[in-house]
Amino acid sequence: MPPALVAAELPPKPTVADVVKASRATEWRAPDPDNTLYLEIPTGRVVIELAPAFAPRHVANIRAMVREGYFDGLAILRSQDNWVVQWGDPDEKNPKPLKTAKARLPGEFTAPMAPIKEFTRLPDRDGYAPQVGHANGFPAARDPKSGQAWLAHCYGMVGVGRDAAADSGNGGALYAVIGNAPRHLDRNITVVGRVIDGMPLLSVLPRGAGAMGFYEKPEQMVPIKSVRLAADVPEEQRSKLEILRTDSTSFKAVAEAQRNRGGPWTKVAAGHVDLCNVPIPVRQTVAAN
Amino acid sequence: MPPALVAAELPPKPTVADVVKASRATEWRAPDPDNTLYLEIPTGRVVIELAPAFAPRHVANIRAMVREGYFDGLAILRSQDNWVVQWGDPDEKNPKPLKTAKARLPGEFTAPMAPIKEFTRLPDRDGYAPQVGHANGFPAARDPKSGQAWLAHCYGMVGVGRDAAADSGNGGALYAVIGNAPRHLDRNITVVGRVIDGMPLLSVLPRGAGAMGFYEKPEQMVPIKSVRLAADVPEEQRSKLEILRTDSTSFKAVAEAQRNRGGPWTKVAAGHVDLCNVPIPVRQTVAAN
Repeated sequence: MPPALVAAELPPKPTVADVVKASRATEWRAPDPDNTLYLEIPTGRVVIELAPAFAPRHVANIRAMVREGYFDGLAILRSQDNWVVQWGDPDEKNPKPLKTAKARLPGEFTAPMAPIKEFTRLPDRDGYAPQVGHANGFPAARDPKSGQAWLAHCYGMVGVGRDAAADSGNGGALYAVIGNAPRHLDRNITVVGRVIDGMPLLSVLPRGAGAMGFYEKPEQMVPIKSVRLAADVPEEQRSKLEILRTDSTSFKAVAEAQRNRGGPWTKVAAGHVDLCNVPIPVRQTVAAN
Repeated sequence: MPPALVAAELPPKPTVADVVKASRATEWRAPDPDNTLYLEIPTGRVVIELAPAFAPRHVANIRAMVREGYFDGLAILRSQDNWVVQWGDPDEKNPKPLKTAKARLPGEFTAPMAPIKEFTRLPDRDGYAPQVGHANGFPAARDPKSGQAWLAHCYGMVGVGRDAAADSGNGGALYAVIGNAPRHLDRNITVVGRVIDGMPLLSVLPRGAGAMGFYEKPEQMVPIKSVRLAADVPEEQRSKLEILRTDSTSFKAVAEAQRNRGGPWTKVAAGHVDLCNVPIPVRQTVAAN
């Protein structure tokens, strides 16, 4: 008999939304205010969670720059379709001076995997790395042979722009991924975190007409009102967000819901999920009663 | 000795841009005007190449709808971050009538692979399909066991919206992928083509605040001025585009340039390229002299 070309109807099963709804309050965490940035642009606030376990020196340097007011008054300079939106200092000739922050740092492209205790490995195969999964809420990869781990360039991940030299970045030029995961950048860039709220404020910015999507005229750039650490913002002005713990039972169920969707809409379950297609749920904080 | 954590400097090698520049004129093709759509919106023209080898009935139906003027005056209804932009009839209660086009078609989620002669297979592993590569200019996958092939949901691919029933679509509701490749939709949707020009006109549209990114107010929708087949547009008004043949030597070199980037900027070559990270170069037609 020839193989059946149309699968039988798939039985319904919980969707990602169903899993999130059924999760327990203890499976959620609030991002650490010392590792949370508020990028304020005219259309609103973009919230970035930093990943000090993977890039301790860059995170410390970004924290120092934020506290110096370095980013305030800088701009979004670049929007390249299916690639990145990038911000930093628009004035290459007269760069904004730093105070205590460093002007260059050695790249933190990978980190020793041993100290990164939480790594919830995906069973799915990956073309770019021997092992992939989630660490402390971030998509990550690791290689037991080299003993190194690194953050993966998924949609919404934030990295440190640099020139050709590995130590030419310092965190003053940052970008967020707005397209298909450019995983070939993994291990070539210091990845410092992830946009956990406000991603559409970046992803819809008009693409720049210049090379690599840079804006050609100053008036096309998007001014940065300020960048603040959540810890330095009064409690009542903070974004009230919580993130599903990536070592929780519900998070594993989220991955499975994405890996093998049920019917009736889905006709063929993929039987696989790419690292960057696993949603990392974020929600407005649910008040404890 | 412990393994070296920082690779030696990579030797430079041709980039994707270098390969495109060095390609021969015969490696490029113009899209067939009978399989090329012009979606005209207020900000400009989006050009879509249709893939009749994979979805012959839907392509024929879309062609019929275009010639009936079905799409003219409809709207972009939905923009969901990291997902899709979708267009169609905003009036569910009084749907625009069809003339000769069909209101429903059986899903063309896969197609027999035997008649699809051009399939330039990638050597890279893929989580979603036994084989991936490019067929007639489109990212595609196939399964020798089932004998079926299908188009892959990469950035810029265009698919047919449907309800739960596999035969509930007809091509009158179409979407383009604007985020990380949702490959789990493969084999669940009729994919009909790819945006080959004007993608940023879609990807920057404000995200809709409604469920699934639908716009909640009619004034937020983006009106469609017209959709035309290139064949029905006077020669001098056509977009002058050509696409690198995916069975060409230069296209293989494009994939390799993306798979293993050279220095000095790149420090670690990925040694792998995901199907949806292989660029399919499109350029303005180079006049033959």
